[in-house]
Amino acid sequence: MNLTATAAADPDWILHDCAEPDRDCRAQALARQDRLTKPPGSLGALEAAAVRLAALQRTEQPSLQRVWISVFAADHGVAAEGVSAFPQAVTGEMVRNFASGGAAISVLARELGARLDVVNLGTVNDPGDIPGVRRVVLAPCSGNVCVEPAMSEPQLRAALQAGADSVRLALAANAQLYIGGEMGIANTTAATALSCALLDLAPAQLAGAGTGLDAAGIAHKAAVIERALARHADARDARERLRCLGGFEIAALAGAYIAAAQAALPVLVDGFIATAAALAATRLNPGVRDWLLYAHRSHERGHAALLDALGAQPLLALDMRLGEGSGAAVAVPTLRLACALHAGMATFDQAGVSEQV
Amino acid sequence: MNLTATAAADPDWILHDCAEPDRDCRAQALARQDRLTKPPGSLGALEAAAVRLAALQRTEQPSLQRVWISVFAADHGVAAEGVSAFPQAVTGEMVRNFASGGAAISVLARELGARLDVVNLGTVNDPGDIPGVRRVVLAPCSGNVCVEPAMSEPQLRAALQAGADSVRLALAANAQLYIGGEMGIANTTAATALSCALLDLAPAQLAGAGTGLDAAGIAHKAAVIERALARHADARDARERLRCLGGFEIAALAGAYIAAAQAALPVLVDGFIATAAALAATRLNPGVRDWLLYAHRSHERGHAALLDALGAQPLLALDMRLGEGSGAAVAVPTLRLACALHAGMATFDQAGVSEQV
Repeated sequence: MNLTATAAADPDWILHDCAEPDRDCRAQALARQDRLTKPPGSLGALEAAAVRLAALQRTEQPSLQRVWISVFAADHGVAAEGVSAFPQAVTGEMVRNFASGGAAISVLARELGARLDVVNLGTVNDPGDIPGVRRVVLAPCSGNVCVEPAMSEPQLRAALQAGADSVRLALAANAQLYIGGEMGIANTTAATALSCALLDLAPAQLAGAGTGLDAAGIAHKAAVIERALARHADARDARERLRCLGGFEIAALAGAYIAAAQAALPVLVDGFIATAAALAATRLNPGVRDWLLYAHRSHERGHAALLDALGAQPLLALDMRLGEGSGAAVAVPTLRLACALHAGMATFDQAGVSEQV
Repeated sequence: MNLTATAAADPDWILHDCAEPDRDCRAQALARQDRLTKPPGSLGALEAAAVRLAALQRTEQPSLQRVWISVFAADHGVAAEGVSAFPQAVTGEMVRNFASGGAAISVLARELGARLDVVNLGTVNDPGDIPGVRRVVLAPCSGNVCVEPAMSEPQLRAALQAGADSVRLALAANAQLYIGGEMGIANTTAATALSCALLDLAPAQLAGAGTGLDAAGIAHKAAVIERALARHADARDARERLRCLGGFEIAALAGAYIAAAQAALPVLVDGFIATAAALAATRLNPGVRDWLLYAHRSHERGHAALLDALGAQPLLALDMRLGEGSGAAVAVPTLRLACALHAGMATFDQAGVSEQV
């Protein structure tokens, strides 16, 4: 199970087989749903979620009491192209805010009783050693994708490994669900460039407002992404596209998703950037797909296309566009209720209720 | 505030003015949202919900710790026309199941720490006096709407009053949110007939599968509703349409919504039948509208048209179609997180985070 511990010794760890969901548990959970005192199917997506979690957690009665959230922060060289509504200093400032409890994901983790793991992968305005933040600094920021690769090969390996290491910590804490979040000024630009390369789409089809660009800002962002794609047109496989166009936190999320799938830990994917990382992860290792649940359809313009490409049906659509893992965290109580209904409702026999005629 | 206590003495209580949401609290909450450490608007529907609840609860920092759920059960004479996939005995059986804790709404109420109030307004398979069920029996079932009015005028008054009484109990328990649920074999038929009359729509436009009809069953149900509408074509105002085409639990929900709006208690509306009751309530007293939040878009076919008619933007869309208040209950944790984020996040000043450039 614990494949991630050996990852450092094995540079090809991301290619190892993923775990398999349990078909028997799935069948048992499905049969149980049909015996509960409700018209069959009437709990909609909650039924499907409980059945899926049963298969992934390999039990007839899944549970999400222990949730792990790792938030990866990293700066992006492409911020120099003026693609964000916020200054680059915000990435480091938000790392402090995550740790001191004032950020959205901090509040959500507290409310959920979830473990919050904050990982600084490299920030220009570096907050340094502060309690509650793990430093895995690869560089102050990634390369500007318009002129150079986002990452060197060693940086890519280290970022993937940082994701796997967060999964190792989650497993050590007996987590039942893994959520990955991100923070990084300009990272919708990196995620959009990576997605355009992986899906062969034009930047104008995917580029969106990010933290708050206007129409002119979005057009500029699309032009910057065009330059990045042209600069890295020779990056032909998913790994090289991730290295040239991604970012430290995007690669870490991809590594985390792969490690979680190898270790049979279900993942709840957040919004646009997390979904771009999920797309990269499934291209690096197709077995990852079985382990990914999708929390929400975000307001960011390109998210729908990414979800479609992954065949994903997210649980919620709340017009959120914050990142940090916040959309995934917001979906946790709904999944917990799905589990509670699955475990706690009476069957027709138990309650003496007549079935459909 | 406590207008419902006087309702028995005043048959026109449903026409009394509703309370007004607090504009100052709304403005303060809106201003606070823009100071929190996130791009403005990036929490989407959660921001809107927190601001709306602030106005309704008349505080800058709303809270949903104390949630009240009243489930009204009633049988329908129109079940004799063969419009449901389940036998009529199920209504009474489910009343027992609500009280003994095995129904979906029972599980959800427990998980939410919400008070669950079960009201038997009249069931053919009457479970009698059982712990956890209030008996307000108006008749074993409503009239068959194809041949007679669903309710007499005294029955309508009593049903509206039963709803108002549940709000009185919720207020006595210091509830911060009121949820109304329903159970009644054939009640999608009654709710559809009422909605067609109120919205001037043809039954084929609104009739859906209910608990599980096939296409032929839905066509039959639409034909039954056609007969009901023809029989009660002379019912011209909302009150008379509710009396002739509704049902005990639908009228109770309408009465509850009106009483809640008069007493400044926010309401979270459940699915198709609850929304039909909300439509009737807003026609009886337009001021009700301000106090209604909508939990979810259900899988029942006609729900979208009802939501559109009410200008409602429900929070969730989980393909649920169970009733009982279950969809509203499932939305509570999302609203609670909206409140927690609103109250608990740091401002840009507090966290020392730079604002948009």
